[in-house]
Amino acid sequence: MDPLYPTFGVFIALEGGEGAGKSTQSRLLADWLMGLGHEAVLTREPGGTTVGTALRDIVLSHSTGDLSDHAEALIYAGDKAEHVDKVVMPALVAGRIVITDRYVDSTLAYQGAGRSLDIEGLAFIARWATSNLRPHLTVLLDVDPAVGLSRFETPDRIEAEPLDFHQRVRKSFLDLAAADPEHYVVIDAGRDQQDIHREIVDRVEPWLRQVRADA
Amino acid sequence: MDPLYPTFGVFIALEGGEGAGKSTQSRLLADWLMGLGHEAVLTREPGGTTVGTALRDIVLSHSTGDLSDHAEALIYAGDKAEHVDKVVMPALVAGRIVITDRYVDSTLAYQGAGRSLDIEGLAFIARWATSNLRPHLTVLLDVDPAVGLSRFETPDRIEAEPLDFHQRVRKSFLDLAAADPEHYVVIDAGRDQQDIHREIVDRVEPWLRQVRADA
Repeated sequence: MDPLYPTFGVFIALEGGEGAGKSTQSRLLADWLMGLGHEAVLTREPGGTTVGTALRDIVLSHSTGDLSDHAEALIYAGDKAEHVDKVVMPALVAGRIVITDRYVDSTLAYQGAGRSLDIEGLAFIARWATSNLRPHLTVLLDVDPAVGLSRFETPDRIEAEPLDFHQRVRKSFLDLAAADPEHYVVIDAGRDQQDIHREIVDRVEPWLRQVRADA
Repeated sequence: MDPLYPTFGVFIALEGGEGAGKSTQSRLLADWLMGLGHEAVLTREPGGTTVGTALRDIVLSHSTGDLSDHAEALIYAGDKAEHVDKVVMPALVAGRIVITDRYVDSTLAYQGAGRSLDIEGLAFIARWATSNLRPHLTVLLDVDPAVGLSRFETPDRIEAEPLDFHQRVRKSFLDLAAADPEHYVVIDAGRDQQDIHREIVDRVEPWLRQVRADA
């Protein structure tokens, strides 16, 4: 399955560990784009669809307890499949700019590196779920897990994993970015939010030239 | 990933289309085994675990609406992963006889043949979910879909699919059975329940010799 880069719209993913500021930066980016008159769709994984919300509750709730690693990975993949089918692809085809808070790399990093599941199997499943649709640009917000995790008072089921889990996740994200510099930017997320926002904007801007709809 | 046949316990799957009598025959078989003093575990997919029950609600409820085919397949696979990890494997290792009402073949038949998803991708995912654990014996209860479906007054989201969907499902089950006669028995499910039960018992009995626990 070859990587599929959208020929309509622009597809941007924000990735990174817990407390890296993905939600804040996703929102700032969407606001900036809309201020320029673009149609921006701000979404997230897991939970960007109705079914995804139910699946998100299962994987993130402490009441789920000890979920098997394979089940966790497959439920995340189910969320992705629904998300691409119902939200991401329709918006891209309409020429919109889609900003997703987490995408396939989070699966590879959290379930692959974090849970130590076989990466080839996981990658196949995540690519199958998404028809191998890839973001034009992935913004990796890189933060030391010890710093990022300190921003949460009531961690969810994943945030509550031990520090070395989150360190494996961070390394996996950085490796993915290093392997494909054309489609990745790594940003030090330990700085001022407005500085980070300006750096993201600089990297997103060149991609805006290709916005067009299947009309 | 090579097929893995359990070396402890006995693993039996009942497969077939809607209204073939799988639940009834699973129960009759479990009762018969327990009458002989065996420890039998009667379970099902989807929904054999706590998480599986939530996933089952998503895939079978009409309120879910138009779920993407890939998402449906992955949610079923998530159910399988949890089921094998939490119910099937522990029972087999303890030397029990596990009877499951549906297993991997239902995914291949319903999502592969019924939904026309690519069968190689689906098979990989279902095998990955279950670590390629295979039943010693799969009992295929074969019934004409026009007959089977007439047994439901209020069909669920899958039962409500058109007749040609269910005909593709039936053919897929029969093809799987024909390819591996050592591990399959095909039973005409249009007959008397007790006759069917006796035929199942005849085919299960030889496998009981291998019951032993990892003790």
